[in-house]
Amino acid sequence: MQNNMTQSNFYELCNDVAEAIQEAVSGLIGKPEAGVTLRIGADGTPTEKIDEVAENAALRVLEADGRSMRFVSEELGERIIGKKPEFTFVIDPVDGTFNAVNNIPFFCVPVAIGSSDLSDIRYGYVKNLVNGDIYTAEKGKGAFCNRRKIHVSSVSELSLLSVISYNHRPHAIPINNHNVRRVRVFGCAALELCYIASGIFDAFIDMRSMLRVTDIAASKLIVEEAGGIVTDGQGNRLSTLLDVTKRVNMVASNGLVHDKLLELV
Amino acid sequence: MQNNMTQSNFYELCNDVAEAIQEAVSGLIGKPEAGVTLRIGADGTPTEKIDEVAENAALRVLEADGRSMRFVSEELGERIIGKKPEFTFVIDPVDGTFNAVNNIPFFCVPVAIGSSDLSDIRYGYVKNLVNGDIYTAEKGKGAFCNRRKIHVSSVSELSLLSVISYNHRPHAIPINNHNVRRVRVFGCAALELCYIASGIFDAFIDMRSMLRVTDIAASKLIVEEAGGIVTDGQGNRLSTLLDVTKRVNMVASNGLVHDKLLELV
Repeated sequence: MQNNMTQSNFYELCNDVAEAIQEAVSGLIGKPEAGVTLRIGADGTPTEKIDEVAENAALRVLEADGRSMRFVSEELGERIIGKKPEFTFVIDPVDGTFNAVNNIPFFCVPVAIGSSDLSDIRYGYVKNLVNGDIYTAEKGKGAFCNRRKIHVSSVSELSLLSVISYNHRPHAIPINNHNVRRVRVFGCAALELCYIASGIFDAFIDMRSMLRVTDIAASKLIVEEAGGIVTDGQGNRLSTLLDVTKRVNMVASNGLVHDKLLELV
Repeated sequence: MQNNMTQSNFYELCNDVAEAIQEAVSGLIGKPEAGVTLRIGADGTPTEKIDEVAENAALRVLEADGRSMRFVSEELGERIIGKKPEFTFVIDPVDGTFNAVNNIPFFCVPVAIGSSDLSDIRYGYVKNLVNGDIYTAEKGKGAFCNRRKIHVSSVSELSLLSVISYNHRPHAIPINNHNVRRVRVFGCAALELCYIASGIFDAFIDMRSMLRVTDIAASKLIVEEAGGIVTDGQGNRLSTLLDVTKRVNMVASNGLVHDKLLELV
């Protein structure tokens, strides 16, 4: 009962935030002015207008919620809301900013609820802002898309894999259309990972040392709760403070192909 | 006047077809049953249910139009409508079938009007079925997105390029996040090429020998009319019969980086 209450409460909170963001940015999609750089954000990358508008919309909802929490977000970094934080609310107000600004219909809002470390996320929520799909997971309770249970794929042959793969710097990962079936790169890690969780793609690889906890915290739990495995390039479980200045590499898969992929990266 | 009449007539015809397809497939987006293979199509690849539904919707509009034309389409190959074809109507009823079936919001309807060869397309039309954007071009008259003129980018430094790049078989193209700024792969060539035409991306490379005239005929003209260059991997202008069994390679760019890219592929 306690768990159901918790999940339900977090769902409502995340959903209220996502809806507020969706409304706030609706007039900015595909607009060059939405991509104007305002300053360098707390994560070390440029804050564009759409990012700030979205983050402010999220903050307004959270400040009105009444609960005390630690707010971790790409642009402002960290803020304590209330007096005695009960949890950490981790958000990328718009994941896929380049897509959103340039009218490429692939961007989302990812939210994770945790305490202090990426390894200890207890609730994950990702809303696809284009088609409205909502992915959720609560630790130990499975993963869902639009409240229907989802599961990773069962493909185990390297040559049959559909992989989302970002190249290494400085060397390209030897994953291409020769050794796997399909390679795609959509430019929105949080949402791409949900397609691993729902079995549409079999694996996700990003070895650029560019992923932030705000990008991946929610989807990491969603992939794991859907039966997948998430590690760094050495096969270690991801663990890092919930801090927007941290960067990680990631290999996420259906589990069946994980060792084969680790050999390649 | 004659040209304007022609353009206007082709716009209406393409748009009627695209709207009929959009309506016909709307219930199939993201549905596994939409991806059931019915047979092998004229182009040599599987015809999925969504492809057939879309092609039939297009045929119904064209057969009611009254003009005689040669219809070239991925699934049925070729059909003569009426008695004395005035032009060739080239269509991929859904480009990005994998995306459409798997609820990945990136797929479109491309239509080209020509005679017998890819080098002689006179009208191109691409509708993004997710957000409704419509790209058009008439030979010698420029390229447009939602009736506003578009132009390719002006980026000339390799290290600053945003590139859509499909890997070679059997060897990967040496284009990665080390030598260009951004690499993306959305799995829908006709629409990706429109992002080259509108200057969002700087180049498109596909050296898999898998592109069909139905995928690229419309967008080739749109890129060229937006100021870009389209060639094969050797730098030759594309020329091939409007026949769905033909396959080509393609390098499309803003023109400024074309030679540098040809050196890499």
